[in-house]
Amino acid sequence: MMKVPAYAAPSATDVLAPFEIERRQVGPHDVLIDIEYCGVCHSDIHFVRNEWGNAVYPAVPGHEIIGRVEKLGTEVTSFKKGELVGVGCMVDSCQNCEACAEHLEQYCENGSTATYGSPDPHLGGHTFGGYSGKIVVSDKFVLHVSEKLDTKAVAPLLCAGITTYSPLRKWNVKKGDKVGVIGLGGLGHMGIKLAHAMGAHVVMITRSAGKGNDARQLGADEVLISKDPKAMERHRNSFDFLLNTIPVGHDMNPYVSLLKRDATMVIVGAVEPLDPLHGGGLIMQRKRIAGSLIGGIQETQEMLDFCAEHNIVSDVEMITIQEINKAYERVVSADVKYRFVIDMKSLKTRSS
Amino acid sequence: MMKVPAYAAPSATDVLAPFEIERRQVGPHDVLIDIEYCGVCHSDIHFVRNEWGNAVYPAVPGHEIIGRVEKLGTEVTSFKKGELVGVGCMVDSCQNCEACAEHLEQYCENGSTATYGSPDPHLGGHTFGGYSGKIVVSDKFVLHVSEKLDTKAVAPLLCAGITTYSPLRKWNVKKGDKVGVIGLGGLGHMGIKLAHAMGAHVVMITRSAGKGNDARQLGADEVLISKDPKAMERHRNSFDFLLNTIPVGHDMNPYVSLLKRDATMVIVGAVEPLDPLHGGGLIMQRKRIAGSLIGGIQETQEMLDFCAEHNIVSDVEMITIQEINKAYERVVSADVKYRFVIDMKSLKTRSS
Repeated sequence: MMKVPAYAAPSATDVLAPFEIERRQVGPHDVLIDIEYCGVCHSDIHFVRNEWGNAVYPAVPGHEIIGRVEKLGTEVTSFKKGELVGVGCMVDSCQNCEACAEHLEQYCENGSTATYGSPDPHLGGHTFGGYSGKIVVSDKFVLHVSEKLDTKAVAPLLCAGITTYSPLRKWNVKKGDKVGVIGLGGLGHMGIKLAHAMGAHVVMITRSAGKGNDARQLGADEVLISKDPKAMERHRNSFDFLLNTIPVGHDMNPYVSLLKRDATMVIVGAVEPLDPLHGGGLIMQRKRIAGSLIGGIQETQEMLDFCAEHNIVSDVEMITIQEINKAYERVVSADVKYRFVIDMKSLKTRSS
Repeated sequence: MMKVPAYAAPSATDVLAPFEIERRQVGPHDVLIDIEYCGVCHSDIHFVRNEWGNAVYPAVPGHEIIGRVEKLGTEVTSFKKGELVGVGCMVDSCQNCEACAEHLEQYCENGSTATYGSPDPHLGGHTFGGYSGKIVVSDKFVLHVSEKLDTKAVAPLLCAGITTYSPLRKWNVKKGDKVGVIGLGGLGHMGIKLAHAMGAHVVMITRSAGKGNDARQLGADEVLISKDPKAMERHRNSFDFLLNTIPVGHDMNPYVSLLKRDATMVIVGAVEPLDPLHGGGLIMQRKRIAGSLIGGIQETQEMLDFCAEHNIVSDVEMITIQEINKAYERVVSADVKYRFVIDMKSLKTRSS
């Protein structure tokens, strides 16, 4: 085992503070990564504050990790020392079930190992995430990252990027489709960029007229204000696909009314109870609602390659690790365009 | 126009009583049907009592109509005088939109004409349904009915049959699939019979253990009591498809937990607000919820032919038209196995 500096919450009531954690030695199929950047996902906050009831302490969050290969296990052939790599929301899965066989490790029937807070199959205890100097990850869960993009802005692709890319692909969004992206935050801003790059006619759907200009700059062709009943009526039964990124419970009925017959709204943000849905809204035009969780490793690589090809990164605001607690407050009040990324040099400076 | 005897509710507070209504003359593409039987659907009750807020009076309900061709329009070639025919929930649609072109008249973009209570494009006023001596219907909306089945028990296929058949086909239920039918009423009992005939492993899902024997006799391979948490846990993530026939708002979360990854629960009964759905239940295994409304005319004919081939009819209790108000009370208290059918001779006797 090796000791590495990290930023952890020792308990649900503590803020994040410097901490030393133990990482496993580099096994034959492992990659040791020197972390350069880590994105700040809303899930990190839910987790360290135990808002989903699944926290374990000390909690080291972070699952949008970019770094360089420092050391390779003896059996690793697909990575090179010094290579730019990424790690997302998972670091292991059973590799043995139907979901894993279909490259859908996020739906592993025996439970994938989350980058932080999952039982650690190697060391016991639980896994520690990317607010850390280094991380050791099985090579199957390490992604190749292009050098041609702005590296620090690539970090959020590992969660916000794949969370929005996967349903757009799964529901076959294509050139000319009318796609609505509901909610303009970390997920929503990636949804706009990706749907736009896939050739869709993208409509940003938001409660706040003030977000219109930003949405257009990100690639939206239209902006639909969900509080405007006349505008909502004009777009009724017209969308081929809706990507719902709202991160909290809400009334889905007005959005369902926007779908065409047989079209789907996919929920990627609201891991909580939603307001009462009217059965008639689904029945009358055979409409559908579905959920989607990040994406598999193969698809995450495909997404990173797609972003490199289309020159897509996240819009980020850089912070030092010492600013993390303030950043959390700003995420909660939706005061960030659109993702905080931690420069991990700040951790190393402080703790060396 | 011709005057025909009917049973109608003159207003929301009136019970059904004898009434004379006007039918249009038989146009070149019309079929005049002498009605023999009409099924009693829960929608009839919602309508005449204006529980969905869409009633118009006098209201003549009934959209599970079986009768014999009495007269044919000059241009009608596909039916013969004296032939046994059926009419379901629709009597017209625009024939001009994308939905109609796909044989999905129930989703007609310009609004299909319901068998009762829709604006009548021929006479003005609104359409009158099957609690009536005769009906005039455009030949495109008349179905061929096999003589080999028990005619009176065929009537409910026109609504309860197609409502359950269509989603089973649309979601491609096939031999060996594990299919759950939720709720054992008019729709549910048809769902069991049809899914069984398609070769599925059918699980009846009900709150009442007392319904188990009946469900097995209808063709269910297993019965799952939804109030038994251990049984529900054993069936978790195991269903290829769920057909939810519950006719009122309810908590969908326990049923969503039964679905496999990527599997769908289709709602056909609850045209009202459902209890709060947890987003996580859909997200974690990419599960889906959809609605489905009856079926198109072509598919309704396919369903009738399928039922003739597999010797499937509804389980019915026969009533006279004079017993209709009592029958309504019994439908509301779920005291019928599983569908009332009115013998229309009783109407003709009384009013002649």
